[in-house]
This record gives sequence, C-alpha cells and structure tokens, in this order.
Amino acid sequence: MPVLLAPEQAPTLHELLAEANTIGLDCKPVDTSKQPELRIRGLGSLASAGPEEVSFLSNPKLHDQLQGCRAAAVIMTSAAYQALEPGSHGYGVVLCSEPYLMYALLAQWFDQHRMKQLATGIHPTAIIAPTAAIAEGASIGPYCVVEEGARIGRGTRLGPHCVVGTNSALGQDCLLHARVTLYHNVTVGDRAILHSGSVFGADGFGFAPDPHKEAGAWAKIAQIGGVVMGDDVEIGANTTVDRGALENTVVGNGVKLDNQIMIGHNVQIGDHTAMAACVGVAGSTIIGRRCTLAGAAMLSGHLVLGDDVHISGGSAVTSNISTPGRYTGVFPLAEHGQWQRNAAVLTQLAQLRRRLMALEKNK
Amino acid sequence: MPVLLAPEQAPTLHELLAEANTIGLDCKPVDTSKQPELRIRGLGSLASAGPEEVSFLSNPKLHDQLQGCRAAAVIMTSAAYQALEPGSHGYGVVLCSEPYLMYALLAQWFDQHRMKQLATGIHPTAIIAPTAAIAEGASIGPYCVVEEGARIGRGTRLGPHCVVGTNSALGQDCLLHARVTLYHNVTVGDRAILHSGSVFGADGFGFAPDPHKEAGAWAKIAQIGGVVMGDDVEIGANTTVDRGALENTVVGNGVKLDNQIMIGHNVQIGDHTAMAACVGVAGSTIIGRRCTLAGAAMLSGHLVLGDDVHISGGSAVTSNISTPGRYTGVFPLAEHGQWQRNAAVLTQLAQLRRRLMALEKNK
Amino acid sequence: MPVLLAPEQAPTLHELLAEANTIGLDCKPVDTSKQPELRIRGLGSLASAGPEEVSFLSNPKLHDQLQGCRAAAVIMTSAAYQALEPGSHGYGVVLCSEPYLMYALLAQWFDQHRMKQLATGIHPTAIIAPTAAIAEGASIGPYCVVEEGARIGRGTRLGPHCVVGTNSALGQDCLLHARVTLYHNVTVGDRAILHSGSVFGADGFGFAPDPHKEAGAWAKIAQIGGVVMGDDVEIGANTTVDRGALENTVVGNGVKLDNQIMIGHNVQIGDHTAMAACVGVAGSTIIGRRCTLAGAAMLSGHLVLGDDVHISGGSAVTSNISTPGRYTGVFPLAEHGQWQRNAAVLTQLAQLRRRLMALEKNK
Repeated sequence: MPVLLAPEQAPTLHELLAEANTIGLDCKPVDTSKQPELRIRGLGSLASAGPEEVSFLSNPKLHDQLQGCRAAAVIMTSAAYQALEPGSHGYGVVLCSEPYLMYALLAQWFDQHRMKQLATGIHPTAIIAPTAAIAEGASIGPYCVVEEGARIGRGTRLGPHCVVGTNSALGQDCLLHARVTLYHNVTVGDRAILHSGSVFGADGFGFAPDPHKEAGAWAKIAQIGGVVMGDDVEIGANTTVDRGALENTVVGNGVKLDNQIMIGHNVQIGDHTAMAACVGVAGSTIIGRRCTLAGAAMLSGHLVLGDDVHISGGSAVTSNISTPGRYTGVFPLAEHGQWQRNAAVLTQLAQLRRRLMALEKNK
Repeated sequence: MPVLLAPEQAPTLHELLAEANTIGLDCKPVDTSKQPELRIRGLGSLASAGPEEVSFLSNPKLHDQLQGCRAAAVIMTSAAYQALEPGSHGYGVVLCSEPYLMYALLAQWFDQHRMKQLATGIHPTAIIAPTAAIAEGASIGPYCVVEEGARIGRGTRLGPHCVVGTNSALGQDCLLHARVTLYHNVTVGDRAILHSGSVFGADGFGFAPDPHKEAGAWAKIAQIGGVVMGDDVEIGANTTVDRGALENTVVGNGVKLDNQIMIGHNVQIGDHTAMAACVGVAGSTIIGRRCTLAGAAMLSGHLVLGDDVHISGGSAVTSNISTPGRYTGVFPLAEHGQWQRNAAVLTQLAQLRRRLMALEKNK
Repeated sequence: MPVLLAPEQAPTLHELLAEANTIGLDCKPVDTSKQPELRIRGLGSLASAGPEEVSFLSNPKLHDQLQGCRAAAVIMTSAAYQALEPGSHGYGVVLCSEPYLMYALLAQWFDQHRMKQLATGIHPTAIIAPTAAIAEGASIGPYCVVEEGARIGRGTRLGPHCVVGTNSALGQDCLLHARVTLYHNVTVGDRAILHSGSVFGADGFGFAPDPHKEAGAWAKIAQIGGVVMGDDVEIGANTTVDRGALENTVVGNGVKLDNQIMIGHNVQIGDHTAMAACVGVAGSTIIGRRCTLAGAAMLSGHLVLGDDVHISGGSAVTSNISTPGRYTGVFPLAEHGQWQRNAAVLTQLAQLRRRLMALEKNK
C-alpha cells in the first residue's frame, strides 16, 4: 500500500512547502485558507489523493480530473489555476511553474522522512574486515559483508545482506537496498542508489577458443579490469554491470539504469544517459551522453553511439550511430493470422523486388 | 537428479490414490493386482519412469511410448485404456478423465511430502523486529530479516536470507524460497510461491528532467506507492515487481509469472494472467484477466490490454488491444545470408510500394 | 579499477613466463634485456598498459597501437615481431604463436594469485547441516547455508550468502561468488564458476488448467525433476536454470552462459555451447554442441537445434534447426520516421504481393 505518514508525524502544508522552498523551487500557496493546519500525510494522483494528501497537475490532458479531486491541495501552474472556475473546488492550490518537478521533490521529501526512521549504525551481525574503512555516519545493515580494503563513505547506508568486495569503494550518501553485491575493485561515486539484487563487477563474458583441448572448448579470459561509476547514478533491481576485461567498465555521472539491465565488460556510458528495463549492452560498446534506451533495446558489442541518441523499445542496434535522433527497429504487432501472411511474404522480399524490377524493365 | 522418496517413506499406490481422491479428482485403479503393496517413490515420464514410479498419458501422440514403459502404473483415460492390447503391458493402469491434472496433483503431493521434512520454526539467526507480527506456525529461515511492522501469516515459510521490509505483509501458507526481497509496504495474499532472487517493491523508474542542473540531469521521483498481490500468485526466480509511483502496482489473484520478468510501476495484472520468462511490462500498463504473454514479449507503458489476449513470444506490444485473440510480431528467422537479402529490401519497402503503384498507374 | 598486484608480490617477467610454460603454451622472450628484473604487476591493453604491465597483440588491426605502447613487454607472433622496425620500441617482446590464448592464461594467473590471498576455511557463521558433507580444502563463506545431504567437493569455494539446498552437490574446485542459490537436488560438476545472483533449480513454469476452479485458474505442476550440470561450466550473474518437471534440466561440459540468461525446465544444452547475455531458452528445448547464441536470442520450447548452430543476437527461434550455420531474424534499425514508413508497408505485404501478381498476369 502507498506510504502515508502517521498523522502525528505529518507536516502541515506550510511546513511542507517551506521544506520545498529550501530545495530552491518557487511555489506559492493560494486558496489554502481552509487547510492552514491540516497535516499532509502523503501524495496522491488527482484521482486518488485523499483529504490528507497533496496532488499535482502537470499533464494538461488531466485537467478534467480536477473536478471531484479530494486532495488537500493541488500543485499547478498559474495558467491552470486561471482556468479553474472560482469556487469550484474544495482543495487548496499551490502555484508552481514546474509542478512535475515540485512533485518529484515532495515525493523525495516524504521518502527521506520514511528513511530517517530506519535504524542506523553498524549492525552487530555485519562482518567488516580489519582493513576496511567505514566513514563516520555510515550505516551497515544486518548480515552485510565488507571485505579487506573496502571503503564506505560518510552517510552511506547498506541494507541487509550487501557484500562489498575487496578494495571496492562507495562514496558518500549512497543507498544500497537489500542484497546488493559489489565484487572486488568496484568504485561507486556519491549519492548512488543501488537496488536489490544488482551485481557490480561480475566477470565479463570472455573466452578464447582453446585448440589444445576438446573441439569447441573455451579457455577463460580472467577479467582483471574493474568497474567505475560516477556520482548520482541509480541502478535498478537485478541489473548487472560486469567488470572490464583489462580496463574498467565505466558508468558516467547521473546515469539511470532500470531493472534487469545487463551492461557488458568495457562498456562506457556517458553522463545522464538513461535506460529502461531489460536493456542489454554487449561488451566494449560506448554510449554517449543524454541518450535514452527504451525497454528491451539491445546493443551489439564494439559499437559507438554519439550523444543524444534515442533508441525505441525492443530495437536491436547493430551498427554505430553518430547522428542524434530517434531510431527504431520493431516488427509491428498484428493479429496472428495477419502476421503469418505478412511474415511469409517477408521471407521472399528479395525475390519480390526482382519480380518488380522485371516488370519495370518490360514496361 | 529427480526427487525420489526413500523406499521406507514411499506410499503404496492405493495410499497415494486415496490421497488424490481427497483432493477431489476421480480416479480408478484397474489392472493393478500385481502392484498392490508396491511402494511408489515418485513420478516419471512414460519413457523414463522406473518400476517404483507412476507415469501418465495425457498427450495422445505419446501413445506409442506406452510400449516398453517400465512404470509401476500409468494414469490414462478410459479411451486410451481401451486402445491397449490386453496383456500387452506390465504396468498397472489408473483410469482418470483428466490425466494431466491428476499428474499435477500427484506431483504436488510428492513435493509437499518433501517439504514436510524440512525444518520449521523461527531460526535463531533470523532477525525479527519487535513490532513485526509472526503468526503461529510460520517458519522463518536462517539469516532472514523481518523489519518493523511486517506481518507474516500462519503457515507461511521463508527460506534463508529473505528480507521482509517495513510494514510489508505476507498472507497464510506462502512459500518464499531463499533470498526473496520485499521492500517496505508490499502486501502479498495467501498461498503465494515466490522464487529465489525475486524482488518486490523496488523503486519504479521515474525521473523528471531537472533544468536547474547540468543539461540532461534527472531529478528522482521518489516512488511512494506500494505493491499489492492477490492470492495464489507464483513468481519466478529473479523476477522484479516495482512499487507504484503514487499508487500501487497490482498483481491479481492466481497470476503466474515465470523467471526474469520485469513488472514496471503502476502496472495492473488481471486474475489468472500468466507470463513466460523474460517478459517486460513497462509502467502503468493494465493487463486483463486470463491473458498469456509468451517468453520475452515486451509491453510498452500506459497501454490497456483486455481480457483473454494472448501475445506470442518475442513480440513487442506498443498499442492497446481490446479484442481477445492471439497477436504476434516476430521477424522470421532465416539463414543469415537470406536474412541479409530480405532485410535490405525491408528498408526500402515504402519505396518499393511507390514503384508498384507507379506500375499500376501505367498499366 | 583494474586489479594490480602490489609491487612486492609481483613476479618478474621471467618468473611469470615460467609459470605460463608450466601450463603448456610455448613462449619465448626476446628483446627483454632491459627488463630482466622488472616486476610485472598486471596486464593491460596496448593503449593503456603501463611500464609494470604486460600487453599483447592478437588482432592485426591493432598493430599501429604498438607505437607508443608503454608496456614492459608485449606478447606477439613472430610475424608481428618481424614487422617491427628495429629499435622502434621500448618494450620487451614475448614471441608466442597464440598471443590471445597466452593472454587468457596470464590473466588467469593474475586472477588466481588474487584469490589465493582470500580467506579460506569454513566461516564460523556458515550453517552446515549435520548430514552435509564438506570435503577437505573446501571454503565456505560467511552466512552460507548448506542443507541436509548436500555435498561440497575438495577445493570448492563459496562466497558469502550462498545456499546449497538439500541433497545438492558441487564437484571439486568450483568457485561460487556471493549469493548463489542452489535449490534441492541440483548437481554441479568440477571447476564450475557460478556468479552472483544465479539461481539453479527453481521450479520450471508448469501449470495445468484447472476446470474445477474459477475460469482461467491454473493448477501448479510441482517440479520434481532436478538440474545436472557438467564440468567446466561458467554461469553469469543473475542467470537462472530451472529444475526439470519430471526429469533433469541438463547443462553439458564446458558450457558458458553469460548474465541474465533463462534456461527453462527440461532443457538440454550440449557441450561447449556458449550463450551471451539475456538469452532465453523455453522449456524442453534441446541444443546441440558448440552452438553459440548471441545476446537476447530467444528460443521457443520443445525445439531441437543440432550441433554448431549459431544464432544472431535478438533473433527469435521458433522451429527446429538441423543444419549447422548462422541464423538471423532481426528487424533492421532505422531512423524512426523511415522505420514508420517501412513498417506501415510491412503490414500490407501479403496484399502487396497480390498486387504484384496481378500486374504479372496482365503483363
């Protein structure tokens, strides 16, 4: 169920907005006289927010949902406010030029408030190697294992069952949820959020044919590079980032990876690039800054993608892309019988073209 | 290796069928006079079952495999039995109108028997928060962590290394295999089976562009919704179900998800819908009841699929589907050279159509 | 960051080559008079190796990178050496007919040296069931759980948080990284490398429609087969190999699976077959020897692939393949607008062919 603060812990609307103001976003309450002391227990959508929650309008298409909205207050732009019929609403209004960003910041506030209530410190069951360095103010959860030479920065928190391998390092104010695994020699910057089940620094997939053994046998190429991740990265549940073969796999600042993504060895991801779930990036591919890869996009190895390249979901990228823009390669879905008929012709396409050319010649 | 009971723990065929009868399925042993006291140690296919195992015939195509079958007994329909040549077989026969369902129930019986032998109770290394509520008869495995306000229902069993986050709840008679993670505010109904490495309630992938920072920078939208799952769900290994942004991600009753599936935030899955492995469902998509998504199908976000929609494996769904039926979008596989020739023409398809139209005009 | 030995632990070049010679590969140092006592702390690429590292030239296209290479020594073939301008290089040269394989072996040496420094033995927090058999020289990491009847071979090492289920067995000299899960009745051969988050023996996805319940309801087919894996397998992070329904899922000798792969129940994988990341193989499919499946390839269930079949990345295989060769089925990527135009025609392909046939008739 959605997270709601207990009433006695909830801020008033004005306290909440004062917090938001410290983050730097302008916002101005109007029409909130009925709710001066009302405590705000959480956030909700226009359709679902209750009388102790704040909502927001960022998508103009949802303007109709303002009717009947039961929220304590709604964040909206001046333009949206002026379009309201006076007296038509029971909620207060908070004017903000960027309602969606405001909502993002308020949601952060509520989530951080929840986390403040969690236990801190080093749990007695955590196993910390003698040469590991844990900064003051770091929290290490139950059954964590921090190996020799590892370093954990100030304010960084590890959930239960995390493993930080030999000589790996986490910066400041990182948040590792339950059972995140860092192999050895993995470096993570500040303010990273790493979700449950993610694995950093597993061996890249490297084998050489070994003609000295049985036909087809593989010799392992031990992966002795590392992983280096910048600041402000977020990595989703069960995502894996492999270690480099000889050098590092590199994840830039502000990179956001969703769940179940696979980043191969030696890959480099530019700053602020975001990937939705189930994406795979094969080894040694270099991705520019501010790219987006939609869900289940697949990149071959040894490619170079420039900055500001956007790949549609489910598309396979098999060659370099230097021009910014959106790229797609998805078979259009159809009713199965129709698909069968078209797919059958697809397998004869080259022949079809030859037949067309023959007709054109004889025209 | 397949699970076989020790001979001294194995039931006789009649004891086993009596158990099955209590489940409610009709079944009638015939031709079993040779095996009245034979102990049944497990189940096997027609081709592999040994003389202490029971097999079944549900697919008429496999009728030939009855010849040479070494099983103690074979479950089959009356029709299949009548087609047998008298005296042609050494196995006993159990008549049942639904042999496949009968097999499913017997397999459950054997698996539950195995589980009855496992240790129960709360392992001394489990860490249970003071405000967590563990019902009588629940089992908590080694190194589990159950956080504040969590609730574990009667008869529910947690394998080693499970984490149940703050205020999360598991119903009765659930089975969590080793290292399942529930974040905070995740609710699971009765009789759920959750496999190893599955993660429930990780943050949905939500970011707003933050123009106050470096170009391309993202502000996190903290995910403050929850996850609500119904009764009788089964979730495969390393599958992830993200928490909602503001409201809940909802998994209906009887939903079956295979391994390595990704369910985005705010998704709603209708009752009895089943998804094979490697499926991805992007955020806010709503899926009806009794749908099936075959392996590696991918659904874009914010879609609505009605009831009884069936998506073929490897297909990408990018728009709403309201009509029941089967839908497909897969590039047909071909020998690589042939694929190259056809794919080359595919990229000129619009031009090809124009040329065809020109010919038609000049006809 | 890449792994480098501390200088006092690093071997001289001649010591290192002597080690390599014991592995059986011929190699001959020349031009190394300047570096007789230089200690080699690690390996690097031609572009990045520093003066305490060894590099190699295996791809002739990289010959230009020899200029300016700062490595202590470079492994190359005689042919490459003869193409060098005398006196043009500061690095030593090691002649070897198979530089890539030599590099693989040296990388193994460095990685094994690193691992020799890790703690061994049974950690006091490991929970070992009374009937489990741990061979001498096995290492069990912190918080591991080894259940009743499990067997761990000599020299096998388990990282933190591994679980070995009832009656499962690991051969000799296996390496399990942190939190690998084996369910019950899973058998693994010698020298396996299993990466973090991998799961072996979770239930296959098997359900029978249950007409005795609500419309669409499923009855679970309990999965009572096992998993059997051969020698020299390597399995990537978060990969899952399900247990068989009645018989075993089988992984052959020398099979290499990358990260996030899903192997369904009853699948059989032939010796030395390799699969790149994100591949899915549905239930009961049989794959031959020495096959390769590139990233995100998807195989339907109940197929048979012969030996030496190679599937391109992102391709869906939906029917049997008996002829060795390379097979592909990928929608070619294009700029989004161009894709839209071609995809629109694709959905009318059958109709297009009819129109072409009409023209041909009227010719």
